[in-house]
Amino acid sequence: MSAPVGVALIGSGRMGSFHGETVVRRLPGARLVAVADPAPGAAERLAAALGAGRGYADVARVWEDPAVDAVVVASPARTHAALVVAAAEAGRHVFCEKPMAATLADADRAIDAVRAAGVVLQVGFNRRFAPDWRAARVLLDAGTLGTPRLLRSLTRDPGGFDPARVPPDTIFLETLIHDFDTLRFLHPGAEVVEVHAVADALVEPGWRDRGLLDTAVVVLRFDDGAMGVAEACFEAAYGYDVRGEVLGSGGMATMGDGRRGGLAFSGPAGRVVETVRGDQELFRDAYTAELGAFVEAVRSGGPAPVTGEDARAALAIALAAAESVRAGRPVRIDEVEK
Amino acid sequence: MSAPVGVALIGSGRMGSFHGETVVRRLPGARLVAVADPAPGAAERLAAALGAGRGYADVARVWEDPAVDAVVVASPARTHAALVVAAAEAGRHVFCEKPMAATLADADRAIDAVRAAGVVLQVGFNRRFAPDWRAARVLLDAGTLGTPRLLRSLTRDPGGFDPARVPPDTIFLETLIHDFDTLRFLHPGAEVVEVHAVADALVEPGWRDRGLLDTAVVVLRFDDGAMGVAEACFEAAYGYDVRGEVLGSGGMATMGDGRRGGLAFSGPAGRVVETVRGDQELFRDAYTAELGAFVEAVRSGGPAPVTGEDARAALAIALAAAESVRAGRPVRIDEVEK
Amino acid sequence: MSAPVGVALIGSGRMGSFHGETVVRRLPGARLVAVADPAPGAAERLAAALGAGRGYADVARVWEDPAVDAVVVASPARTHAALVVAAAEAGRHVFCEKPMAATLADADRAIDAVRAAGVVLQVGFNRRFAPDWRAARVLLDAGTLGTPRLLRSLTRDPGGFDPARVPPDTIFLETLIHDFDTLRFLHPGAEVVEVHAVADALVEPGWRDRGLLDTAVVVLRFDDGAMGVAEACFEAAYGYDVRGEVLGSGGMATMGDGRRGGLAFSGPAGRVVETVRGDQELFRDAYTAELGAFVEAVRSGGPAPVTGEDARAALAIALAAAESVRAGRPVRIDEVEK
Amino acid sequence: MSAPVGVALIGSGRMGSFHGETVVRRLPGARLVAVADPAPGAAERLAAALGAGRGYADVARVWEDPAVDAVVVASPARTHAALVVAAAEAGRHVFCEKPMAATLADADRAIDAVRAAGVVLQVGFNRRFAPDWRAARVLLDAGTLGTPRLLRSLTRDPGGFDPARVPPDTIFLETLIHDFDTLRFLHPGAEVVEVHAVADALVEPGWRDRGLLDTAVVVLRFDDGAMGVAEACFEAAYGYDVRGEVLGSGGMATMGDGRRGGLAFSGPAGRVVETVRGDQELFRDAYTAELGAFVEAVRSGGPAPVTGEDARAALAIALAAAESVRAGRPVRIDEVEK
Repeated sequence: MSAPVGVALIGSGRMGSFHGETVVRRLPGARLVAVADPAPGAAERLAAALGAGRGYADVARVWEDPAVDAVVVASPARTHAALVVAAAEAGRHVFCEKPMAATLADADRAIDAVRAAGVVLQVGFNRRFAPDWRAARVLLDAGTLGTPRLLRSLTRDPGGFDPARVPPDTIFLETLIHDFDTLRFLHPGAEVVEVHAVADALVEPGWRDRGLLDTAVVVLRFDDGAMGVAEACFEAAYGYDVRGEVLGSGGMATMGDGRRGGLAFSGPAGRVVETVRGDQELFRDAYTAELGAFVEAVRSGGPAPVTGEDARAALAIALAAAESVRAGRPVRIDEVEK
Repeated sequence: MSAPVGVALIGSGRMGSFHGETVVRRLPGARLVAVADPAPGAAERLAAALGAGRGYADVARVWEDPAVDAVVVASPARTHAALVVAAAEAGRHVFCEKPMAATLADADRAIDAVRAAGVVLQVGFNRRFAPDWRAARVLLDAGTLGTPRLLRSLTRDPGGFDPARVPPDTIFLETLIHDFDTLRFLHPGAEVVEVHAVADALVEPGWRDRGLLDTAVVVLRFDDGAMGVAEACFEAAYGYDVRGEVLGSGGMATMGDGRRGGLAFSGPAGRVVETVRGDQELFRDAYTAELGAFVEAVRSGGPAPVTGEDARAALAIALAAAESVRAGRPVRIDEVEK
Repeated sequence: MSAPVGVALIGSGRMGSFHGETVVRRLPGARLVAVADPAPGAAERLAAALGAGRGYADVARVWEDPAVDAVVVASPARTHAALVVAAAEAGRHVFCEKPMAATLADADRAIDAVRAAGVVLQVGFNRRFAPDWRAARVLLDAGTLGTPRLLRSLTRDPGGFDPARVPPDTIFLETLIHDFDTLRFLHPGAEVVEVHAVADALVEPGWRDRGLLDTAVVVLRFDDGAMGVAEACFEAAYGYDVRGEVLGSGGMATMGDGRRGGLAFSGPAGRVVETVRGDQELFRDAYTAELGAFVEAVRSGGPAPVTGEDARAALAIALAAAESVRAGRPVRIDEVEK
Repeated sequence: MSAPVGVALIGSGRMGSFHGETVVRRLPGARLVAVADPAPGAAERLAAALGAGRGYADVARVWEDPAVDAVVVASPARTHAALVVAAAEAGRHVFCEKPMAATLADADRAIDAVRAAGVVLQVGFNRRFAPDWRAARVLLDAGTLGTPRLLRSLTRDPGGFDPARVPPDTIFLETLIHDFDTLRFLHPGAEVVEVHAVADALVEPGWRDRGLLDTAVVVLRFDDGAMGVAEACFEAAYGYDVRGEVLGSGGMATMGDGRRGGLAFSGPAGRVVETVRGDQELFRDAYTAELGAFVEAVRSGGPAPVTGEDARAALAIALAAAESVRAGRPVRIDEVEK
């Protein structure tokens, strides 16, 4: 067994803590060597809680730390692209939470820097590592599903968000970007050429005038004629809901049955099964698998299973969807490319 | 199309009314021509409600009525055997609700009378006509399930019964007799040779001393070594529950998923599906199919799909199970045969 | 019990035969008195098979037949509107298969004729009578689902169609019109204001140039901001698939679980459940319930549960969807109203 | 965070390797410090594969190793009791795979030694830690299920066993002992007083004469009248199947839905879901949770969640069941106590 990969975590919030815990508890091939977060004391606190020695308030210290082979970027989305560039320039491999960038220009800069440095870049589209989705892809690759005709992917959060803290286009750039990537993943070899999106503030209608979009439907056309539908809503009374469906010429695969487990209680109200309540519960193993795949790519020098190019393609769809809402018409992907 | 079979209904209670409605509404090959019930006015009332002309307080009138080709016996269980004999002696075909008899001697008398008269006798083991069970039998007959090893059949009623009106051995003679027939149906070619039963008053413990048995488990051995488990309880908080399972060398069939329909409501409590609440709801189509098969047998002169011999075999198992509880030991079927 | 309603069936094809069988076998309140079909001998053959006396090659004979109280129109779609008008002018109640008309002008003529004659008109949107959908509406009306935000309805046929016999816009006017009505049914009080549709020949790509559309996705906006998605495909390898979903502020209802029954076979390949294979299998009870409701409306003089206005509203959505495909942009419903 | 618990693994077979991997990869609170196995080279090989330094062919070396705080016993069943005694006498905490002993006398010796030494003893009834079963117990403890009346627990292995290597009573002492413990776990406060068992060689009928029992049904009576059914079969064509059910006065809980994941494939054969194929797949998280609970008990000095007394009670049921098969009659638990 070669030495474990030294990982620094950038960002100590909800996802940062979770990724840190995954590295410490569930990834024997990696070792958490540092945590960085500009919030006073935050990095030290998480490092101590996880039993990983160093906490840095200044991310620049990460690049100077010789124990750091790779970074996991889980800071706010607007900082992602610059951190990928910085990591690459410092010769560090980088796992970056989605979205990798908020503009195509930034995405290109990140991709170029990574290519120039020859480091591994993997983007956090965790659904590709979830067992149901992986199994659907196996059915596709084996030809069992035939040629995809109608695809669907949806994401529903359990609600409780603060409308004042939702920037415009969040539903496209941070939520549906998962579904856009999933639809691409489930129709390998085809590319999305046009989208049409409708979106509104239905959970928080009072915030509609300030541009909040909390519910959206996006129809995508692939270059072979196949159609995809991506849906998202920021509130589901029953918890966290992620599902997918592929109707192909050979049959249909459905992913994500929403059940928390196999227990059913039958009582006066009927039969009740628990529903999933959060992403870290539903995707715990997927989060472990994606970081495991990243660590493996770093160790083997192999390519990452989700690339910067994948991140860029999903971003282009998200930008086109946002533009479609503004323009009230279908938008071709090549319209958002200048 | 030949003329419809003229049917007289004997018994106008819960099952009688339901069978009457089935004949009138859902069986084009039959015509309800009379209803008989000794309770004053009962026969007339049901006849009027169903739009069938005659109501008889005296069942003897049925045998004199030339419009009557066949009778459906849905009177109290203790009257069944004598009515089968009377019907046969009057040259009428007879569909008899289970149990056909309460003793093996009565069962033999009924079978002999029917054989002597050359009429059709069918017994009301409706589960044989329910789609799930029929489909399991198809899998068995096709060899897909292989040789049965472990079988299960269970019946749970929704409760609300009056303990004072439950005669001893009801759970064996009227409830589990369905499960005993089902287990025989699901292991064609084999016969039950021994049973061991445990039973108690768990729903109404206060009635235990008066001999109430409201919950029971019966283990059956088949002559090829296969094992069956029959279970019953007079109260399930979630409704009416009938299920079956066959584990064979080729796989497993499970019957009866307990769902009322395909609707699911996902809300704060999780995902809820309605459960089945009553036998006439669950088995409506099975009740129609069994009467339809009876009418068909009458019209074609063919054999009935559930015979008096089937009824006798299930009765022997029920009697042995009741004896097993009394004796506190396994009882061989040949012990109840004298 | 009042006298049964005398019903004449117009059209003796697949749906006509099925409706005829329903009237004869499953609707005690109605009597089939005539069948009309211009194809030589067709009406007589079906009338004989169903045991209903008269067969007419000339539909005009129906209007002269005093035994006819009501007609069930199951002839080709293009003849529907004129037959509704003729029935109304002859003073007959009319149940008309969908679509009631192919243009809004024809729909208006039918509605006007019915109103002038004071007869009952009901349109064949059978999904409103299917248990799952009815139960979802109960949850809506009770407030359990809260305010609908995202709705979905889909229809997939088992395939095997003849591309040469599919007129343009069939997928909208004959298939998706069910889904459009369903979405309106599941969001009572709101109306659709805009649609955007994409459609293609994916099952039969070779027919794309002749205008075949066999796969479609339609996004609908309601006047309160809610979003609906309707999907259809003319071929599903696994059979006939009709589903629905409502995500409301109070939770989610899902309708149509695709299972043929409760039997599951677990074998070397995993666990297998049969899927539904055809509409008459899935919706047998719904077809009975809708004709039963029609007969009840005729007998009671009450209003029909699905009106000509409902048919017109669904038609407007279908026409707008077809136009959206042609124009490549969202189309407002008021654009198809001149 | 206190120092991790130093764990030595005794036994390097299938379960030993799995437990070792769990300690190394999924239990941050424990450290694997040694592996012991008398087979030449086996301990060293597993220790090297897991990255844990020392491998001992002589288990006595474990007791001399000061880095060992606790042992995980995963050696052949016949060695368990003596190893528990040895561990206790050496002052080491001990996690012992089931069965803890093959006789009640051995069980008592193990319990006494542990008590005298004041060490923690936990027995490997992993089902208590599986999410579905844990959730059922929560429903029981909360009163939602009411008083248990009918309980069921079953175990089916995927087959492929070597009949020549199955000692008599294996099905009771090694397989059904899980179900006996589960039934006790699901009816807290009650004790089993009598069992009746039937068993046979149905998978391998040719081995019947040599005493092979590969299929069994056991009915258990609790002291409050409740009834339990335990079933086992050494071969299920569809994989590994563990299920449970509790029917209580308040409703029913069902555990173990047999699905490998949430993916369904609908194709020409119907809808197919993958079934679970092995225990380590089904219970991976349960195995981790039970070892985690053991480590926690060691660190906190708290009691183990599954005690030697639990192991003894399940053993008594297993011995009574084996005796019931031999005697062909129900056997009271107090009959196996001398």
